[in-house]
Amino acid sequence: MKTFRFRPAVEAMDGYVPGEQPKISNLIKINTNENPYPPAPGVYEAIRDFAAEKLRLYPQPTADMVRETIASLHRVTPDMVIAGNGSDDILNIAIRSFCGPELPLACFDPSYSLYPVLARMQEAPVVRIPLTAGFEMPSDAAEQAASANLLIVTRPNAPTGNAFPLAAVRRVIETFGGVVLVDEAYADFADDNCMGLVHEYDNLIVSRTMSKSYSLAGIRFGYAVAGRGLISGMMKIKDSYNVDMLTQYIVRAALSDQAYLNKTRSAILATRARLERELTKLGFSYVPSQTNFLFAVPPDNDGRRFFDVLRENAVIVRYFPGEVTGRHVRISIGTDAEIDKVLEIAAQLYG
Amino acid sequence: MKTFRFRPAVEAMDGYVPGEQPKISNLIKINTNENPYPPAPGVYEAIRDFAAEKLRLYPQPTADMVRETIASLHRVTPDMVIAGNGSDDILNIAIRSFCGPELPLACFDPSYSLYPVLARMQEAPVVRIPLTAGFEMPSDAAEQAASANLLIVTRPNAPTGNAFPLAAVRRVIETFGGVVLVDEAYADFADDNCMGLVHEYDNLIVSRTMSKSYSLAGIRFGYAVAGRGLISGMMKIKDSYNVDMLTQYIVRAALSDQAYLNKTRSAILATRARLERELTKLGFSYVPSQTNFLFAVPPDNDGRRFFDVLRENAVIVRYFPGEVTGRHVRISIGTDAEIDKVLEIAAQLYG
Repeated sequence: MKTFRFRPAVEAMDGYVPGEQPKISNLIKINTNENPYPPAPGVYEAIRDFAAEKLRLYPQPTADMVRETIASLHRVTPDMVIAGNGSDDILNIAIRSFCGPELPLACFDPSYSLYPVLARMQEAPVVRIPLTAGFEMPSDAAEQAASANLLIVTRPNAPTGNAFPLAAVRRVIETFGGVVLVDEAYADFADDNCMGLVHEYDNLIVSRTMSKSYSLAGIRFGYAVAGRGLISGMMKIKDSYNVDMLTQYIVRAALSDQAYLNKTRSAILATRARLERELTKLGFSYVPSQTNFLFAVPPDNDGRRFFDVLRENAVIVRYFPGEVTGRHVRISIGTDAEIDKVLEIAAQLYG
Repeated sequence: MKTFRFRPAVEAMDGYVPGEQPKISNLIKINTNENPYPPAPGVYEAIRDFAAEKLRLYPQPTADMVRETIASLHRVTPDMVIAGNGSDDILNIAIRSFCGPELPLACFDPSYSLYPVLARMQEAPVVRIPLTAGFEMPSDAAEQAASANLLIVTRPNAPTGNAFPLAAVRRVIETFGGVVLVDEAYADFADDNCMGLVHEYDNLIVSRTMSKSYSLAGIRFGYAVAGRGLISGMMKIKDSYNVDMLTQYIVRAALSDQAYLNKTRSAILATRARLERELTKLGFSYVPSQTNFLFAVPPDNDGRRFFDVLRENAVIVRYFPGEVTGRHVRISIGTDAEIDKVLEIAAQLYG
């Protein structure tokens, strides 16, 4: 006999499904938007030079040395920054801060599938706002979100890859009556971003991650920038020591090398442009990307088939079943050699 | 004008107060139960040999290589283990899994002050069960906790340092109608522990941390062991990638060197015994400790005064104001030289 009970909201949730870790040798893994290039040279040094005896002590609880680096990078003050154990931690903190049974979450569809999962943990209703046929925000987005206390705008959006026009995001921030979190996980690959707007709007949170553009998915670090009122409240919710000591040194080293960031970003954008050109020749269409991935539709509109054939050839991309998304596959921008392999398989199938 | 609102429970919480980080040179910091000895030699190797280019990839989401090491250490199966970003993460996951407005938390008083904070985030009522004058569990603890869905038993307890009799804990697990979490943060310093009981009771969770006995407070790693039913539900609540990749390698190395653990533990227990003997000569009393700290009462029963004088001499211990706790100071067991300094100051004051 079971002698325990979970919260009903937990009972109602699906079991945890870990991400796909296929056991194929020589696999080309371009399914989770990881960066194909290694982290900055300073990261190697930070690890090599780290005095492990320091690990006996607790880390600085608010990761202040990293907050200072972030503050100077974005021209804000350190008290406008909160550090997280990955940007998933930041999203979790935000949803625990602003959402509950009477305080719904609003987000767009399709977008990052974690948002509704985190809302469910809080027993918060979710207002899903469908994107238009071209994956743009509808013009009445703020009105549709009106009952919510928190609205997440993913810009650039995943899995579609496009960035909503900045003016449209600005209008949403001004019109919506609650907090707007702009999830900028992919902003380093985009033409512009919303970071500067934190000085203008006290209801705006902008979140970033080190997992994509800084090649540090393994280390778990994300952060948010917002006005002091929002940050000080969110600080109450975060775990006391959510960012470990070694991570703080690694992140500071990575953030300090903006030249390396620019170099690897340029390489990825060049590969992305080549992938777009070559797929177009083969009859693909795609959503114009502002990210390190491409949401592409094969000539026969059968995303599932292309996904399966790539997989048979040891190339793992991401497929999202569904009426709107199922025509596409999402291809993370890997190295040139990895993308060559994708193009080779595509040419055999559709050439 | 403020254009946002937090959840009422968040508004009602106190602002976050980071831990004390005094800026005194040559400080003796024995206030947060950190281990005075460095981590195991294998930790240095794990960091030195770590291939930083792997950080571009996400970590294994459930930290399986660590779960396997833990499972073999405690003679359980890996699916009976959940890994956390520190044991605070484990406590947070447990309270989010089992507590809410209709599902109270029960815990003892005095005990670890984080429990009621985490309950407040969940809007869960807290049933505080006062310990007896000798800091033991009252015999009707399970009855007092009856309205709760989760009961936390801290064994050994903090800040008192004593371990409740194993038979009494067993009786509570059998009598209480909900989930019992035994927080064993300090169990490696104790004569016995509850880990073996997870095979007997499906409503029992036992949590551990690497912060104290393994000298790894900086790295943030804790875990819980329980029956599969409890673990699989708690997995739904944890962040997908809550334990970073480098931490997984470091933790595996530390867990694999039980000889080093035994050596540093023996040194700490010897120092603790000496501190007990010498303080007794000076007229102190203390709670018999099963941990790496001592909860001691100076001859004049004025814990605050002893704390202040130690601080003036650059020795930082922990003081807990309050009728019951305020007579004591909590002294973490440091190196022999650090404890000599405490004894020297105590001799000047009370000798």
